[in-house]
Amino acid sequence: MKRNLLLTPGPSKVPVELCEVLGKPIIHHRTPQFQLVLKEVAEGLRKVIGTSSDVYLLASSGTGAMEAAVANLVSPGEKAITFEYGKFGERWASLIKAYKATPIVCKVAWGGAVTVDDVKKALMENPDAKAVFLTHCETSTAVAPDLAAIGAYMKTTKAVLVVDGVSALGTEPLKMDDWGVDVYCSGSHKGLMLPPGVGIVAVSIKAIAMIDISTNVRFYFDLRKAKKALAETDTPFTPAIGIVIALNEAVKMLLAEGLDKKQEYYLKMAKAVWAAAEAIGLKVYAQPAFRSRALTAILIPEALNPKKIVKTMRDVHGITMAGGQGELDGKIVRIAHMGAVDEYDVLTGLSCLEKVLKESGHKFELGASLAAAQKVFNG
Amino acid sequence: MKRNLLLTPGPSKVPVELCEVLGKPIIHHRTPQFQLVLKEVAEGLRKVIGTSSDVYLLASSGTGAMEAAVANLVSPGEKAITFEYGKFGERWASLIKAYKATPIVCKVAWGGAVTVDDVKKALMENPDAKAVFLTHCETSTAVAPDLAAIGAYMKTTKAVLVVDGVSALGTEPLKMDDWGVDVYCSGSHKGLMLPPGVGIVAVSIKAIAMIDISTNVRFYFDLRKAKKALAETDTPFTPAIGIVIALNEAVKMLLAEGLDKKQEYYLKMAKAVWAAAEAIGLKVYAQPAFRSRALTAILIPEALNPKKIVKTMRDVHGITMAGGQGELDGKIVRIAHMGAVDEYDVLTGLSCLEKVLKESGHKFELGASLAAAQKVFNG
Repeated sequence: MKRNLLLTPGPSKVPVELCEVLGKPIIHHRTPQFQLVLKEVAEGLRKVIGTSSDVYLLASSGTGAMEAAVANLVSPGEKAITFEYGKFGERWASLIKAYKATPIVCKVAWGGAVTVDDVKKALMENPDAKAVFLTHCETSTAVAPDLAAIGAYMKTTKAVLVVDGVSALGTEPLKMDDWGVDVYCSGSHKGLMLPPGVGIVAVSIKAIAMIDISTNVRFYFDLRKAKKALAETDTPFTPAIGIVIALNEAVKMLLAEGLDKKQEYYLKMAKAVWAAAEAIGLKVYAQPAFRSRALTAILIPEALNPKKIVKTMRDVHGITMAGGQGELDGKIVRIAHMGAVDEYDVLTGLSCLEKVLKESGHKFELGASLAAAQKVFNG
Repeated sequence: MKRNLLLTPGPSKVPVELCEVLGKPIIHHRTPQFQLVLKEVAEGLRKVIGTSSDVYLLASSGTGAMEAAVANLVSPGEKAITFEYGKFGERWASLIKAYKATPIVCKVAWGGAVTVDDVKKALMENPDAKAVFLTHCETSTAVAPDLAAIGAYMKTTKAVLVVDGVSALGTEPLKMDDWGVDVYCSGSHKGLMLPPGVGIVAVSIKAIAMIDISTNVRFYFDLRKAKKALAETDTPFTPAIGIVIALNEAVKMLLAEGLDKKQEYYLKMAKAVWAAAEAIGLKVYAQPAFRSRALTAILIPEALNPKKIVKTMRDVHGITMAGGQGELDGKIVRIAHMGAVDEYDVLTGLSCLEKVLKESGHKFELGASLAAAQKVFNG
């Protein structure tokens, strides 16, 4: 009888309407019926991403979408700049190394995020870099940089801006074309409210021109194949049919609610969680200027055993949040407010967190986090 | 009110029990709850494949599993032998070329399949070939070679035997370890009765040793990462959680019915379709010695417009079969009898095929294909 509430930053909660779609028998992918789905979902995703350029769907997780970006843009021996302000920034460097190119790794202290000045400095020092890789929402630390400012600068350079938007898409504001983002990578299982299985890669005209030049080895993730197939409303290989059909519905749901309005709501949930944490004597990990809308990382005193708190919430109460990764292992609890999560889910999560914090010996007034959140939701 | 019956050779029919599983809310993948699923599904797949070695799951379609085999076994400049007896055999050569190795392409006339003598000859002529790549069920022509005989010979050589089992797994008999198959690649959406989205790669001890030596570029499909993760009951990247959970149930369903019994049944359905085709004056495309259990390709006189027949069955009557590919384009109709398809589905398909053949002007006795099939099912 216990809950199964996902407040994790991916996979995130799948709403019942989309569960129903996922539970329907599928159709064949080489049919006019599925072509209609492919056409609609591409149009919808263009709106969510803010681009009039190509959006490719891959049967993969988010890392597959990231690999497609690296394999198609950077050739062996070339330089690319990466920014690390959490665990996922490291993935770009690992991918670039795997593809025998040279990552110029710029570290930013965790809790903060890359700024336009950081990008300028790195590109001045490495004018031969082909691309700058960064993370829109760094899920491990719950920060988001000012992508609009960085993109505006990147437009004035020859290098392309490649963004890991796996946990950001749908939740963080994004205007790919206006902002000057060249490649945006994402997945189905975070802000888009579905199980993992579909990778998404949007590519600007500037970046499409680079795809044909790359000398890298690629087949499954070859975006030349994806481009050719998209022009024929097709996919180069068998798509994850069931998830693609549900993705079309998910995107329609987001657009029907209104993206701007929805993203205001994610910000409100984020602010509610920040206020809630402070009301029970806890600190939000991320610096105020860089806090994401998609999730919040709350510092928990190590004496309270944050790992055990996460485990108890999940195994005893059925409320799943995430602990810390890398240098934050055993130091934080992360609560997602992306995709289909709403204020009542957040209150449920805070209520459970209070219960387990109390059992762990933390001193605070019961209900204080709920009242603080409630004031933000309804103030 | 019309049917949505998939008699296509992938994606194949998803039974209602598995639709229900796919429609349930998912759980997080980094939990003991999902680890239990990973453990069970690996054990189940080992039984279906007939191996005591590692079985890796990828978030990809079948081609991703095939790419993993190539990327991890063949290094740039090395030789590998491929056998082409249909469209999917060509994919191996394309992959090997993409990875800058040299495919030795052996063509076998379509309608037949590779034999042990073909493999012996090719390896004698190319003793430096690292691997032999072939197709267990060649979906484009509906043939299956004698994998047991080929594997027995391959055991006596240094080269590894890599098999595309995307449309064969679960349906064609397979004893990977006993037969001497080194790498077996498959997917979730054919004999395993699910939507596409999970790639499967089983790797023998002989092949695992080669993975560490390969100098090829790889990241998402790096089986060294998959091996390390499997040892910890984990996956290197976010898995296709929903499909993996359903795959565990699908494998349990197959094993509960009994694989041998189930595979006898697929053969019976195949024989029923062969008899049905002949009863209405049509020919089965594949040579009798090489016919697969998973699907049948029926030659249709071009005057009857086979493409239009497939289109009418699908768009007017909701019964989806497949047409021909490559040199068989516009010449055949392919009907699958794999996975969850049963004899009543086959009768439904034959009934619809008769209806549309009649409309197309083909002369035959109405009901003759149904009666012929019924005799095989119940004889």
